[in-house]
Amino acid sequence: MKLAFLGMGTMGGPMAANLLKAGHQVTVYNRSREREEPLAAMGAVRAASPREAASGAEVVFLCVSDTPDVEHILLGPNGVIEGAKPGTVVADMSTISPAATRSFAAALAEKGIAMIDAPVSGGSEGAVNGTLAIMVGGDEAVVEKVMPAFQAMGKSITHVGPIGAGQMTKAINQVILAGYYFATGEGIALGLKAGLDVKKVVQAISGGAAASWVLSNRADNMIDNTYPLGFRVRLHQKDLRIALEAASEIGVAMPVAAMVSQFENSLLVHGYGDEDVSALARILRESAGLE
Amino acid sequence: MKLAFLGMGTMGGPMAANLLKAGHQVTVYNRSREREEPLAAMGAVRAASPREAASGAEVVFLCVSDTPDVEHILLGPNGVIEGAKPGTVVADMSTISPAATRSFAAALAEKGIAMIDAPVSGGSEGAVNGTLAIMVGGDEAVVEKVMPAFQAMGKSITHVGPIGAGQMTKAINQVILAGYYFATGEGIALGLKAGLDVKKVVQAISGGAAASWVLSNRADNMIDNTYPLGFRVRLHQKDLRIALEAASEIGVAMPVAAMVSQFENSLLVHGYGDEDVSALARILRESAGLE
Repeated sequence: MKLAFLGMGTMGGPMAANLLKAGHQVTVYNRSREREEPLAAMGAVRAASPREAASGAEVVFLCVSDTPDVEHILLGPNGVIEGAKPGTVVADMSTISPAATRSFAAALAEKGIAMIDAPVSGGSEGAVNGTLAIMVGGDEAVVEKVMPAFQAMGKSITHVGPIGAGQMTKAINQVILAGYYFATGEGIALGLKAGLDVKKVVQAISGGAAASWVLSNRADNMIDNTYPLGFRVRLHQKDLRIALEAASEIGVAMPVAAMVSQFENSLLVHGYGDEDVSALARILRESAGLE
Repeated sequence: MKLAFLGMGTMGGPMAANLLKAGHQVTVYNRSREREEPLAAMGAVRAASPREAASGAEVVFLCVSDTPDVEHILLGPNGVIEGAKPGTVVADMSTISPAATRSFAAALAEKGIAMIDAPVSGGSEGAVNGTLAIMVGGDEAVVEKVMPAFQAMGKSITHVGPIGAGQMTKAINQVILAGYYFATGEGIALGLKAGLDVKKVVQAISGGAAASWVLSNRADNMIDNTYPLGFRVRLHQKDLRIALEAASEIGVAMPVAAMVSQFENSLLVHGYGDEDVSALARILRESAGLE
């Protein structure tokens, strides 16, 4: 397929590379233009703007940081909306607001441009290896059209519902994770303060109802008090903000997610924003007088 | 081995039965004496008191409800301490206070009676099938002596540390679970209120970092708003109380566990104490105006 990919960040760069490796024609664009170079070296065409990138593409992917970035690239000056022909599909793989996603889709629809949302999880490792989980919202026929390209980037692709449903699913994922990280930290702080060999404790409980990816993969960070990446606190905090805004708009109370978001603010202030999210254990360790 | 088992409840009854099936001689006692009958029919000897049960046993197991019950059976009138000979081992498989456990062990030690703590997880199904996870605290040599009997009752037996460490490990398990159940409920309430097909959402996210036993095994309860057993809210609330007391004694702040414990109080008031712990989702569903 003739594709465009906008946003060559930690995620977007390797995702576009996987599209190239799968044999697609890919035109790339990034605000900092030098980031396009490794992709050009793999055979990508470089475009000077989102408008130019979108002009010849069947599907325009984007993967950028936050809601305003997506708005700017899609609807701003020299944006996708100015270049894409009717019938083009926009597939937004950023993690942004579900409500804003629906409004961007409505604006594009007026020009005959279809939009689907397809945020991912699995981190930079998943982006490089093509093993991302992709949560897709949009019309069935449009999602089907993009599916071969998704399959080059991810291993678990789930069409969860209409436009915005992918973003809401990602929000749910981040809300659940917030509580999982924090609760794991509470248990580990209790064990450390009690003087237990907490690695043995984790081994004892991880075969039962407390089993989780977080306990299996991040408890050691919390016990050792070192938090290599992973997934950055500042990105999780941004995602939780989106989730809390969505919850506020539709009227859902999420006290644990809200509290964890507050503690992530504290981690950012103390310079821990670029550590892995498991650094939430710092709050619990320090409040217990450990370290 | 010549064993005694005190407490023929939902857990203790089938645990004692598994000891009998493994070929051990077992003397049983229960406060409500008729509960001894099924065990007697399997070949157990009945004793009229903890004292009598303990008098001929190498190891005295007990599995009762709460800290005061253990104190009464071990140290009260006609208690184990009056019947057990020096060299006897007491293995407490109840879930009780770690600090009280250490004080009971000290009282027994004055009479030459060794004590280990060995709370379990895995529910009544695990008790029946002999697949419990057993978290053991106590002296290595004593734990080794009891190990063949543990192996008749559980499949994962971890010696985590000295006396009380088993109870602290169980407390950590319940603290972590509190947050996992509640956070899962927050995510599911958000998805339901957003009108998503939440079973699809769970499928989309359960291959990633949000993977957990709770998400795989209890999300459907929360989506369907039905909470069959499982593990009772009132028992989890009791266990969280023990964990929060232990945390308070040693100076650990566990805000999520404390909040969940408060919401469990509310579930008890509303008559949901005998539902599965996943009924915590009721709080989140109802506060979101769902149902």
